[in-house]
Amino acid sequence: MSAQQYQIPDENTKNYGVLLNKKDDLQVVEIPMPTPAAGEVQVQVKATGICGSDIHLWKYGEIGIFPVTQPQLLGHESAGIVTALGEGVTTLRVGDRVAIEAGIPCSKCAQCMAGRYHLCPVVVFKSTPPYDGLLAKYCTHPARWLHKIPDNVSFEQGALLEPLSVAISAIERSGATFGRSLLITGAGPIGLIVLAVAKATGISPVVITDVQPSRLQYAKEMGADYIYQVDPKKPDYEAAKEIRDLVGGEGTEYTLECTGIESSFRTAIMATRDAGVCCLVGVGKNDQSLPVNNFAMREVDIKGLFRYHHTYPRAIALMASGKLNIDHLITHKYDIMDALKAFNTAADYSTGAIKVQITN
Amino acid sequence: MSAQQYQIPDENTKNYGVLLNKKDDLQVVEIPMPTPAAGEVQVQVKATGICGSDIHLWKYGEIGIFPVTQPQLLGHESAGIVTALGEGVTTLRVGDRVAIEAGIPCSKCAQCMAGRYHLCPVVVFKSTPPYDGLLAKYCTHPARWLHKIPDNVSFEQGALLEPLSVAISAIERSGATFGRSLLITGAGPIGLIVLAVAKATGISPVVITDVQPSRLQYAKEMGADYIYQVDPKKPDYEAAKEIRDLVGGEGTEYTLECTGIESSFRTAIMATRDAGVCCLVGVGKNDQSLPVNNFAMREVDIKGLFRYHHTYPRAIALMASGKLNIDHLITHKYDIMDALKAFNTAADYSTGAIKVQITN
Amino acid sequence: MSAQQYQIPDENTKNYGVLLNKKDDLQVVEIPMPTPAAGEVQVQVKATGICGSDIHLWKYGEIGIFPVTQPQLLGHESAGIVTALGEGVTTLRVGDRVAIEAGIPCSKCAQCMAGRYHLCPVVVFKSTPPYDGLLAKYCTHPARWLHKIPDNVSFEQGALLEPLSVAISAIERSGATFGRSLLITGAGPIGLIVLAVAKATGISPVVITDVQPSRLQYAKEMGADYIYQVDPKKPDYEAAKEIRDLVGGEGTEYTLECTGIESSFRTAIMATRDAGVCCLVGVGKNDQSLPVNNFAMREVDIKGLFRYHHTYPRAIALMASGKLNIDHLITHKYDIMDALKAFNTAADYSTGAIKVQITN
Amino acid sequence: MSAQQYQIPDENTKNYGVLLNKKDDLQVVEIPMPTPAAGEVQVQVKATGICGSDIHLWKYGEIGIFPVTQPQLLGHESAGIVTALGEGVTTLRVGDRVAIEAGIPCSKCAQCMAGRYHLCPVVVFKSTPPYDGLLAKYCTHPARWLHKIPDNVSFEQGALLEPLSVAISAIERSGATFGRSLLITGAGPIGLIVLAVAKATGISPVVITDVQPSRLQYAKEMGADYIYQVDPKKPDYEAAKEIRDLVGGEGTEYTLECTGIESSFRTAIMATRDAGVCCLVGVGKNDQSLPVNNFAMREVDIKGLFRYHHTYPRAIALMASGKLNIDHLITHKYDIMDALKAFNTAADYSTGAIKVQITN
Repeated sequence: MSAQQYQIPDENTKNYGVLLNKKDDLQVVEIPMPTPAAGEVQVQVKATGICGSDIHLWKYGEIGIFPVTQPQLLGHESAGIVTALGEGVTTLRVGDRVAIEAGIPCSKCAQCMAGRYHLCPVVVFKSTPPYDGLLAKYCTHPARWLHKIPDNVSFEQGALLEPLSVAISAIERSGATFGRSLLITGAGPIGLIVLAVAKATGISPVVITDVQPSRLQYAKEMGADYIYQVDPKKPDYEAAKEIRDLVGGEGTEYTLECTGIESSFRTAIMATRDAGVCCLVGVGKNDQSLPVNNFAMREVDIKGLFRYHHTYPRAIALMASGKLNIDHLITHKYDIMDALKAFNTAADYSTGAIKVQITN
Repeated sequence: MSAQQYQIPDENTKNYGVLLNKKDDLQVVEIPMPTPAAGEVQVQVKATGICGSDIHLWKYGEIGIFPVTQPQLLGHESAGIVTALGEGVTTLRVGDRVAIEAGIPCSKCAQCMAGRYHLCPVVVFKSTPPYDGLLAKYCTHPARWLHKIPDNVSFEQGALLEPLSVAISAIERSGATFGRSLLITGAGPIGLIVLAVAKATGISPVVITDVQPSRLQYAKEMGADYIYQVDPKKPDYEAAKEIRDLVGGEGTEYTLECTGIESSFRTAIMATRDAGVCCLVGVGKNDQSLPVNNFAMREVDIKGLFRYHHTYPRAIALMASGKLNIDHLITHKYDIMDALKAFNTAADYSTGAIKVQITN
Repeated sequence: MSAQQYQIPDENTKNYGVLLNKKDDLQVVEIPMPTPAAGEVQVQVKATGICGSDIHLWKYGEIGIFPVTQPQLLGHESAGIVTALGEGVTTLRVGDRVAIEAGIPCSKCAQCMAGRYHLCPVVVFKSTPPYDGLLAKYCTHPARWLHKIPDNVSFEQGALLEPLSVAISAIERSGATFGRSLLITGAGPIGLIVLAVAKATGISPVVITDVQPSRLQYAKEMGADYIYQVDPKKPDYEAAKEIRDLVGGEGTEYTLECTGIESSFRTAIMATRDAGVCCLVGVGKNDQSLPVNNFAMREVDIKGLFRYHHTYPRAIALMASGKLNIDHLITHKYDIMDALKAFNTAADYSTGAIKVQITN
Repeated sequence: MSAQQYQIPDENTKNYGVLLNKKDDLQVVEIPMPTPAAGEVQVQVKATGICGSDIHLWKYGEIGIFPVTQPQLLGHESAGIVTALGEGVTTLRVGDRVAIEAGIPCSKCAQCMAGRYHLCPVVVFKSTPPYDGLLAKYCTHPARWLHKIPDNVSFEQGALLEPLSVAISAIERSGATFGRSLLITGAGPIGLIVLAVAKATGISPVVITDVQPSRLQYAKEMGADYIYQVDPKKPDYEAAKEIRDLVGGEGTEYTLECTGIESSFRTAIMATRDAGVCCLVGVGKNDQSLPVNNFAMREVDIKGLFRYHHTYPRAIALMASGKLNIDHLITHKYDIMDALKAFNTAADYSTGAIKVQITN
């Protein structure tokens, strides 16, 4: 079946999902066909990316402060086609191609009303324990948190809108704009998408770091102005000095830390210019030893990022403009019935996988 | 003589400048060879753009609140080569290729110390009465307000850095960033450079307006997402509604008014989205009738732009990146001895001139 | 009946409201006792201030872009006691003392989700045509838009929270903070409340203007650092210069225009310091002739204010702190049965009325 | 001699200074009478506060990254009277009462021109090694970095303008404004001055913490809304929860950490509301273990403060307004000849000293 086609399920249509029973126990199982409640629609999922957090839930049985407490579906980077409308839905029609924004905030609390719905204390975020994720053939979702994608955006690109939202949010949090310098520590999937957005929006120069030369070479080909290979044995302040020297000695005005590793965060802080901003995007240890006087006495602001908000329209606009080419980051695709293979590929660095997607 | 060569003047070298004696009285005259004072350098000017304000000074004997009070040279969009160093200059060498930032602030007043040197009350801005401009074969300028340009930036591009600085400043004042919508009213030189920067930095969608279909066609080819032809007989609120409808009915988040014409400013305000920003870039009448309740009750902020500050490094980075192609805006070039012809071309819309430069 | 007492209505309790039939036709009429719908509560209104917009609706049959289209109750500055709960209300109890936030936004649109619920395009704002206002003995209102007031805040003060919200919002929009200079043009009710907030929060120095010496004297007693009597015959630029000279010649960093009069707005703009902010709070003519080059070339930002958002908690905190004494602004109180007398007093400058309240 | 009098030195006038020879070696010594260079003035110092950093230099031979490398005078919180003018000084006259802003930036570098002169890399900050401080009978200082104080501000208050500048800067960095909640960790001199400013500017509610009940009692009397006694044995997250509960469970919108102690910083972060700001004011260990996921996933921004900039005019305005009473924080005064006694008092917590000043 072509990615552009869809099947309105009948009584014979089977639904399957990628279920995490508990740590280290992942299966493709048959699940009930979901019926959309009022305000919801049913979506035939066409593409879903595997996120590092999905891997982490599978391998460690937790992500950050959220332990797996019951069997649940994984996946939160999805796009698909509307196959049924719940009561009262007027903004979508069957056949609409949509990207799914995975978090469903309450729209009523102080954070929601202040414009920060990503910090809603009762948000339901698909695939974050204990909520089911989107890795299924069919799912339901509130119409309000689906975003129509134009014809020139594929489902695979639609699924990339989720990590793209993270990247956009990261850049927004940092404040980086065109003609300003940016350091990205870590050339993994998020670091590389941040790089792509930075280059597409005139942020310049961009320095990116990693321990793997192949990742750096990839980043160079994507347009990184400077690459820096991390030597884990080198003291953080020396690495920081070398990075600063790449951009004239003063460091970068903005830094996005995309590894979650303490030593990388320390280097990132020290490499940021006086009065700059260093924003943590990667997730790592709860407690980390940070160079407090270094950032405080130089007034480098330290921020963290939690997901994204209000980004989908901007992400779609960027993707549809054709100026942001990140398709090449999808290195592997698997059918949902081969989901275990997909997860194993994504978890194994030796495969060269950047973004693995499950497509139907 | 190639643009890359320079001549260190000796006693036989003559200097010429484009002198505005008074309104309507412009001449190329021989002028003394200037000697750099302490902290200054002598520059052989290689390219200078003619700005609308130069034309205005010539034709009207004033610009905004500044009347021509004595004979003066015109020109403030220049790049050239350093040909002599004044006492104490250590940051430049003879032969350095430089863009000239035309304004020289005091660096001591409250505005300078607050980071807003463009608002320095005692700034000396070359070509703004009563100060001499840069349209000469040789001039002097403080080393601190010269910016080295890399080899891949031509002198013509170096001269474009000045209007590019205006465009960057305009976008910065508005707050527009990638994935946000922008309306540009007026497809003249500044409007088109704003458009080029907007497209190079992912601002999207971009709407641009003008009365001339040829200008709009040009803008379309430069990448404008929507063009809108202004009908001077149409009421402003109708024009505004039609522009709003181009971007989904709500109007653009940001608007840059680049004509200085009252009716255009009114339309620009009304076409801006609730809680958006409309920034005036064009210079027009001192008093204008504005739709006050329209902007106030929708909380559209009204801003104005005065020149630029801190923009040259960003402008050079953008220009050097190769992603910003605005060379095609230079439609005509003349030798300084033909300056009158250059001014006549620039002042005559029927020539199709966008940016006229005087190159040596 | 003491202001602290309340009466849960029975079948014999009559309800009365202040009804504007049409322009110039205001009456106190018996109206049905309202029953709270789900999520709403019934409130016995104890105090309601008369706003300039109520007067304007009465005298002109319109306010700004909103014409009176059908008979409606007036009033939107109210506080009272909860007398009945609609279905599902858990955050309030009968007997709770509450201030009523008059606007009810949808909580779902782009403006609401962006944190700007005051700009919600479908907001129901009590007393703005065509919606009934709060000038009644009993009304209903969503529980979510009621704010509990502490025991040391009276109902009269509770009703003042509405204009206080305007003042807080105005200061917030301007950006003025402690130790910064502020110009307030107009010493009417809003101007004086802005003054009170400015003095209670360390904004300093504060200049206030008016045509009436008595109002200025009142402002002086409230702590205005400088007062300036407006001479309507004096050119705006002269008045602006004299105001600037009061604070050292450079003008005030922030200005709040609280009259809605064109000449006052012009003076306000010209009296604002370079790179400052001039925010329009008063409502006046749709089109006004503004000194465009004056604000644009000095980069004075022009803003407008539309109501308020997120202000009630801050307003209550300020009021409860005891540091903000604005009770004296309530110059007259009337029973609801004397509402016409109250409106006539409020509309007649010769009465010396500042804020007239209707209390029950 | 009364504090209001001054003595223009003649050849018989002796000058004395408080000299730190090296760690633990502090003396009052006779020093030469300084002659003002061009742009400088000579000041008879009338009052100087002893800062914690002076004590630290004396006891540890270093402060932060600055080791004592040669004998130097201490002190940077001073006010006095102009006794002689250097060449070209036109803005001050002999007899002017002035506060001394201790840092002298270059006014030319990128940080200075960006409005952040406190981050000037070549700033000369009096008393920070290797530069002499202001603890002398007479000193010289650039006229530009002296601030005239009005008659109703005493010299003792003039000397307090320096720590007041730190407090103003801290509040500015945090973003706290009236009607917003603030946590201050540490009721030492800076914490108490922050408290005074917060109360004088309507920031509300204010919570303050300390280990010493007497300090908390003092803070309570100064107007703290809530006090919280720190139990060093209690886990940080428990302390944070108890502090959050004081303000309704969500924590404070803004937090200023004024101890420099790691455990206090950790508690401060955890007690800050989601999307709030926690700014470090106290100086402590270079490396500290911070709860990274706690602040990152709640988007609490972490900032540091380095001195102050542009604060003196605001500090003087606040002080002169009479609304800010912090004189009582000066618990001890000594003559300069008793400087050692003064330092011993300041260094000994059992004396109850808050701010010790040396007055002449």
